Amino acid sequence: MKFSRMFIPTTKEAPKDATLPSHQYLVRGGFINQVGAGIYNFMPLGKIVLDKIRAIVKEEMDNAGANEVLMSFVTPLELWEESGRANVMGHELLKFKDRKNAGYVLSPTNEESVVDIVKNRVTSYKDLPLNLYHINTKFRDEARPRFGLMRGREFLMKDAYSFHATQEDLVREFNLMEETYKKVYSRLGLEFRVVEADSGAIGGSGSKEFMILANSGEDTIVVCDSCDYGANIEAAKRKELKKEKLETKQIEKVHTPNLKSIEEVTNFLQIDPYYSIKAVIKKAIFKNSVETVVFFVRGVDELEETKACNAVDAIDLEDATPEDLEKANLIAGFCGIIDFPKNIKVVFDKELIGENNIVCGANEEDYHLTGVDLTALDLEYKDLVVVKEGDTCACCGGKLTYTKGIEAGHIFQLGTKYSSAMNATFLDSNGKAQPFIMGCYGIGVSRLVAAVIEQNHDEKGCIWTKSTAPFMVDIIVSNSKKEEEAQAGEKIYNELKANGVEVLLDDRINARFGFKMGDFELIGFPYAVVIGKKLQEGLVEIIDRKTLEKVDVALEEVTSKLLEFIK
Amino acid sequence: MKFSRMFIPTTKEAPKDATLPSHQYLVRGGFINQVGAGIYNFMPLGKIVLDKIRAIVKEEMDNAGANEVLMSFVTPLELWEESGRANVMGHELLKFKDRKNAGYVLSPTNEESVVDIVKNRVTSYKDLPLNLYHINTKFRDEARPRFGLMRGREFLMKDAYSFHATQEDLVREFNLMEETYKKVYSRLGLEFRVVEADSGAIGGSGSKEFMILANSGEDTIVVCDSCDYGANIEAAKRKELKKEKLETKQIEKVHTPNLKSIEEVTNFLQIDPYYSIKAVIKKAIFKNSVETVVFFVRGVDELEETKACNAVDAIDLEDATPEDLEKANLIAGFCGIIDFPKNIKVVFDKELIGENNIVCGANEEDYHLTGVDLTALDLEYKDLVVVKEGDTCACCGGKLTYTKGIEAGHIFQLGTKYSSAMNATFLDSNGKAQPFIMGCYGIGVSRLVAAVIEQNHDEKGCIWTKSTAPFMVDIIVSNSKKEEEAQAGEKIYNELKANGVEVLLDDRINARFGFKMGDFELIGFPYAVVIGKKLQEGLVEIIDRKTLEKVDVALEEVTSKLLEFIK
Repeated sequence: MKFSRMFIPTTKEAPKDATLPSHQYLVRGGFINQVGAGIYNFMPLGKIVLDKIRAIVKEEMDNAGANEVLMSFVTPLELWEESGRANVMGHELLKFKDRKNAGYVLSPTNEESVVDIVKNRVTSYKDLPLNLYHINTKFRDEARPRFGLMRGREFLMKDAYSFHATQEDLVREFNLMEETYKKVYSRLGLEFRVVEADSGAIGGSGSKEFMILANSGEDTIVVCDSCDYGANIEAAKRKELKKEKLETKQIEKVHTPNLKSIEEVTNFLQIDPYYSIKAVIKKAIFKNSVETVVFFVRGVDELEETKACNAVDAIDLEDATPEDLEKANLIAGFCGIIDFPKNIKVVFDKELIGENNIVCGANEEDYHLTGVDLTALDLEYKDLVVVKEGDTCACCGGKLTYTKGIEAGHIFQLGTKYSSAMNATFLDSNGKAQPFIMGCYGIGVSRLVAAVIEQNHDEKGCIWTKSTAPFMVDIIVSNSKKEEEAQAGEKIYNELKANGVEVLLDDRINARFGFKMGDFELIGFPYAVVIGKKLQEGLVEIIDRKTLEKVDVALEEVTSKLLEFIK
Repeated sequence: MKFSRMFIPTTKEAPKDATLPSHQYLVRGGFINQVGAGIYNFMPLGKIVLDKIRAIVKEEMDNAGANEVLMSFVTPLELWEESGRANVMGHELLKFKDRKNAGYVLSPTNEESVVDIVKNRVTSYKDLPLNLYHINTKFRDEARPRFGLMRGREFLMKDAYSFHATQEDLVREFNLMEETYKKVYSRLGLEFRVVEADSGAIGGSGSKEFMILANSGEDTIVVCDSCDYGANIEAAKRKELKKEKLETKQIEKVHTPNLKSIEEVTNFLQIDPYYSIKAVIKKAIFKNSVETVVFFVRGVDELEETKACNAVDAIDLEDATPEDLEKANLIAGFCGIIDFPKNIKVVFDKELIGENNIVCGANEEDYHLTGVDLTALDLEYKDLVVVKEGDTCACCGGKLTYTKGIEAGHIFQLGTKYSSAMNATFLDSNGKAQPFIMGCYGIGVSRLVAAVIEQNHDEKGCIWTKSTAPFMVDIIVSNSKKEEEAQAGEKIYNELKANGVEVLLDDRINARFGFKMGDFELIGFPYAVVIGKKLQEGLVEIIDRKTLEKVDVALEEVTSKLLEFIK
C-alpha cells in the first residue's frame, strides 16, 4: 500500500482528556477518532490492527472446535426479563423502544441470546458439548467512559458460550479455553498473566482473568515471586497471617476516651494490633433492599470491597453515613461484637477463626473490651481482606507482590444460572430433563488494540508487535521528488511485497523527511527503510522501531536483511 | 469440518410468515434464526456464507483503491440534526437517549459519520480523491420488516463514500464503482442487471441500482430486448409515444353527464384517448407542509408515483381524499387545465409538450372541454409516466419488457448535499474553500445471502453458487456405524482437504441416510459424495446439487473428479 493512497490522518494534538499513552497515540497516529463519549471510529490503520487481532482470536477459537455464529446486536428486552438481568444490570444496559413501542436493548453481552438459540434446538446429551462464539459489537452505557478504547461504551468483543451435560465436561472446556486464550495472547506478542478472578455480575463459580501487564492497567494483580500464582486483588489469597496464640482471659472493659483508630487504641493498651479487630460499616445494596452490614477484620488488615460484597451477596457496597450508624445503633470507632445490635448482619474475616483473646470496641462511646473470646460466639466467617505486598503465597510460601494489568479476557464457569432461569434443558442419558451446564469466555478485541500499545510504546509513539502491526515495514523515501530515490523505494516495495511482507511505501510528494520520520515513529511500524543521501553509495538505512537502532544496508540486501529481522 | 462437531439446526418447519424461498430455506437449513421482527442471528453455516460474501466485497473494494474503516454503529443525534436528516428520515431512524439524556441513533447509513471524519482532516484538493468504506451493522426501524433477510431491520451493509474536487472526478469514481460492483456480483455467481434508478431519500443526481434477477424480487425492472438498457420502473425512460398531430380547433364545452373515466369520455366523444389528458390528484407531503397537487398525463398513460414525487420535490405522495378535493375546488372526473383553481400546484407529463388539441375536464360537474391548446398556456412539464411493457426503447428502438429483481446494490452521485449541509470543505487549487463533491455506494451484504437463494433454489432447498457455498462438498457416510464406510469417508475427507477443497464430513452416528440426504438437499452444498452399498465394488456416488445428477466414481478417483467439477 502507498501512503499517498491511504487515509492516515496523523496529528500533533492529543485529545485533552487523554491520559493514557494508548489513547493519545491511537488518536494522534490516525488509528481511531472519537464520535461521542466512549464511541470511536476506526480509521484504515486502526481497522487493519483490529482485523489482525480478530483473525488470531477467530483462528484459535476455531482450532479449539468452537463454532462461530453472529448474534444480533439489538435484542428483545423480554429475553433480559426472562433471565432476570433487565433490572440487575442497571444503567449499563441501554434500553430503548422501537416504533411499535416494543422494548429492546443494545447487547452488552449475550448469555440470554445464546441460551435462546440453544433452547429447543439442542435437546439431547448426545449433542453436547457445544461451544458457540461470535465477535460482535457490544454497548455498555458506562457512567464514566474514558481512556479511549480501554473503557469505551461501544466496543468489539469475542464472547463464547459453552454447553455441557456435566460439571466435569465444563471444567475440561474451561481448561481448553484457558489454553486457547494463552495461545491468543502469545501470538499477539503480549506479556500476560492468567489470574484468579472474581466472577462479578455475570455470576457462576470459578473464573480466571487474562491480564496484559502494563503500568497503566486499571487492575491490581497479586503475583508470587517464586511460583505461577496470580490473582486479581479482588480474588487474591495468601497464607494466613499467624502469630503466637494468647492465653484466654476474662473480658475487661477499658476506658479509651476519644481513641477511635486501631493504632490509637492498641498503642494505649500496649497490644500488638494483630490481636485487635476493627469494624468496617457499610451500606449493602441488595436487589430489593438496602441494609447496614458490619465487617470485622484484624486490626492489621484492610477490607477488600469486592470480597465483602460477595460475602453478603450484595449488588454493591457504599460507605455507611452517620445517619445509617445511628439508625443501626452502631458507634463509630467503638463498634464491637459483644452486645452487638440485633438484626444487623455481621461477617468476620476467616483468619479470625479461633481467636480467643482479642481487643474490640465495647459498643459504648469511649470504651473498648479486651480479652474477647470469639470461639465462644456463633459467627459467620468469610474471606474479606486485602492481600498486601509482602504477604506469603499460599501455594509455595514465596513473597506476593503487586503488579498492574489490563483485563483483556475473562473466562467463567457459569453453571446453570442462565439455563435454569430461562428454562433451557436437555435430556440426559436417563431421559431426564436437566438445565445445561454453561461456561462463558470473553476477549475484549478492541480493548486489545489499546492494550498492545499500553505495553509497547515509548515517548515517540506506538511500537506494534509483529503480529499486530498494520504494516511490517515503512519505506521512507526522503525526497519523493528525486527520481532515483522514488525508484529505489518502488524497487524495495515490490521486492518486499513479492516476498509476502506487508509494506507501506511513504511516497508522499509534499511531505518532508522529518515529517515522514515522525509519522513512522508515531504510528510505530516495526521497521523502516530510509532511502536518503547514502543512496549514491548504494546504501539505505533500516531502523528498528523498538530499539531505534539504525543499520546501513546495501540496496540489494535490504529484502533479505529485513526477512531475517522479521523472523 | 465434521457435521457432528458443528451446530447445524436444520428443521422441517418453516416460519409461518415465510413466503419467500430464501426465508423458508435459510431458517429450515439452520443458517439463520429469528430474534425479533426483522432481527436475525446467523448460525455457523449462515456465518460462513456471510463471511464469504463479505470477503469478496472487501477484496474488490480494496482492489479499487478504497480504504476500509469501521464507523461506529451508535452515532450522536446532533450529526443528523446538522445534515437535516434527523426529522426527514421519519421512524426508520431509531433514536434513543443514553443515561445522561444525550440523543443517539442506530446508524441506518453513514453519510453524516463519514463527512464528520473527513471534515477538517482532509483540507486540500491534493488529498483528493478519497474513498472510505466500511462493512458494518445497520438498523432501520422498518414499518413492515418481512421476507427474512430480504427486508430486515438489523442488517449488514457495505457502504462507501467518496470525496472529490471536481464533478468529473466523481463521475470517474462512480464508473469505477460500477465496474467494481459488476465484479462482485459476477464473482458471487449471480445473474444481475445494472439499471438506472431513482435516488430516493439519499438525494443527489445520477444513481444506478444492481438488481439480482429473481421472480420474487420486490422491484420491477424495465429492460430492452435488444440493447443493454435497464432501469428501475421508478426511473425508466422510453421513446416518446408519437401520433399524428391534430389541427388546432376552438375550445368547446361538451356535456358529459356521469362520464368520469377517460374510456367513457373518449368513447362518447369518438376520440382516440391518446388525445385526452387525465388528472391524478395527490396529497403531497413536504418537509413542513402538506399540499394538494395535480398531475396531468395522457389518457393512455399512468402516473409513476416516484417520478411524480420527485417532480414536486415531496417526501411522499398520498391519495387525495374527497375532502381534499372539495377544499381545493377540484371536481373528481372533471378536472381540467382551463379555469384551474389558483394556488394549486400542477405538473404535466413532458410527452404532452406541444399538444394543441386535446380533451380534458371542464372543472365543472358533467362537462369536458375539447380543442384545448396546451401550447397557449405556461405549464410545467416533467417526466411523470409509467413505462409499459411493449413501449419502445429510447436507446435503440427495441421493445421494452418487465422483469423482477432484488436490489442488492445502489450507487449515487451525491454532489455536495451533505458536505454543504455540514460545512465540510477543502481548499481548491486557487486556495478557495469548496464543499466536497461526494459519491456513495452501498451493497446489502446480508441481503445478498437471501438473494443468492432467491435466484438459486428448487423445491428441495438451497443451491449455493460455488463462491457462496458454506462448504463445496458434503461427504455423506450412509451408515457411520459401518467401519469401512466411516473409513472411506475419512479418506476422501482428508484428500479433499489436502487439495484445498472446503469439505464437510457427515459423520453423524445416529442420523440415517435419508436424513443426511435431506439435509444435503436442504442446505444445498454444490456436491455430495455418497458412500453407501456400492463401496463393496469400490464405488461411491457424486451428486451435483443443481442438476441432482448422480455419477458413480471409483473411490480412488473421487478427488480428481470433484476437482474437475469444481473448476
